[in-house]
Amino acid sequence: MKEQNGKKGFTLWFTGLSGAGKSTIADALAPILRDRGLKVERLDGDIVRKSLTKDLGFSMEDRKLNIERVTFVAKLLTRNGVAVLASFISPSIEVRNESRNEIGNFIEVFVKASLDACIERDVKGLYKKALAGEIKDFTGIHDTAPYEQPPTPELVLDTEKLSVEECIEKIIAKLEELQYL
Amino acid sequence: MKEQNGKKGFTLWFTGLSGAGKSTIADALAPILRDRGLKVERLDGDIVRKSLTKDLGFSMEDRKLNIERVTFVAKLLTRNGVAVLASFISPSIEVRNESRNEIGNFIEVFVKASLDACIERDVKGLYKKALAGEIKDFTGIHDTAPYEQPPTPELVLDTEKLSVEECIEKIIAKLEELQYL
Repeated sequence: MKEQNGKKGFTLWFTGLSGAGKSTIADALAPILRDRGLKVERLDGDIVRKSLTKDLGFSMEDRKLNIERVTFVAKLLTRNGVAVLASFISPSIEVRNESRNEIGNFIEVFVKASLDACIERDVKGLYKKALAGEIKDFTGIHDTAPYEQPPTPELVLDTEKLSVEECIEKIIAKLEELQYL
Repeated sequence: MKEQNGKKGFTLWFTGLSGAGKSTIADALAPILRDRGLKVERLDGDIVRKSLTKDLGFSMEDRKLNIERVTFVAKLLTRNGVAVLASFISPSIEVRNESRNEIGNFIEVFVKASLDACIERDVKGLYKKALAGEIKDFTGIHDTAPYEQPPTPELVLDTEKLSVEECIEKIIAKLEELQYL
């Protein structure tokens, strides 16, 4: 069930603060993996919150449900030979570990950037709103939404030091090391 | 994206009353398709209501949400070459048509049995409870939950006349006719 052109399905799980660069890296990686003959699906908040999880907000409980549903989808795709690129803040160690256990071929990628750097970038203008109190439960800003760094991720990508290209090189090398490529 | 051993992914969507035989047929079909080299996933209420849709009940609105989430999953699996066998009462023509449009390679299978026959079979004991008023919104029993027969399904399987084996023969023939096999 797991082979696709002799290769196994897997889920690259990008976790990190809003603005750390998760989706940017995953979006840039997707066509590169497709060029290598892999079937690729992107899962991120903007995609799933339109359909799969449109009833959910950003409370701790709703975030957990969001990730549970995404995990179900990633599991089914992974065991059918798809390379899943999932980018979610997914702030809870416990919830990420449940995803790891459920999905199996799970590669946790910590996309690392300091809170200050993310606030400075503020690509979507969300930090400004969060700091102004216009958004509740914003990860890293509010006590209700702490971000728990992964203690033992398969990969750490420090986006304050590395370019997108360098991040992708590291991911490709890791996938080769783990024999997914 | 859609090829798997030269074959396309598709979703067989089994619709019909509780007890009509949807899951029985889909469960029997799954290993037969796997033996033919297809990747197969089963989706049914018992599977998805444990994870994907465990927050949902059986009101019209909740049933619609249930099918919307299942449709998202079926779409992703289908476009990655998987044969999806989805068995859901899915009583609404409109909702089923949305699934059809969303999924693309969609084969609607109306698993047909009269309400009397389903009440007579009552494999899960649900009709007894519904008729006793212990279950609300039960399809075919309560006015709140009508079943809308598909006007133009790809296949009608009358389980009052056909055996499971005969139903499977008809499905295989249809899949060959549609060039999925």
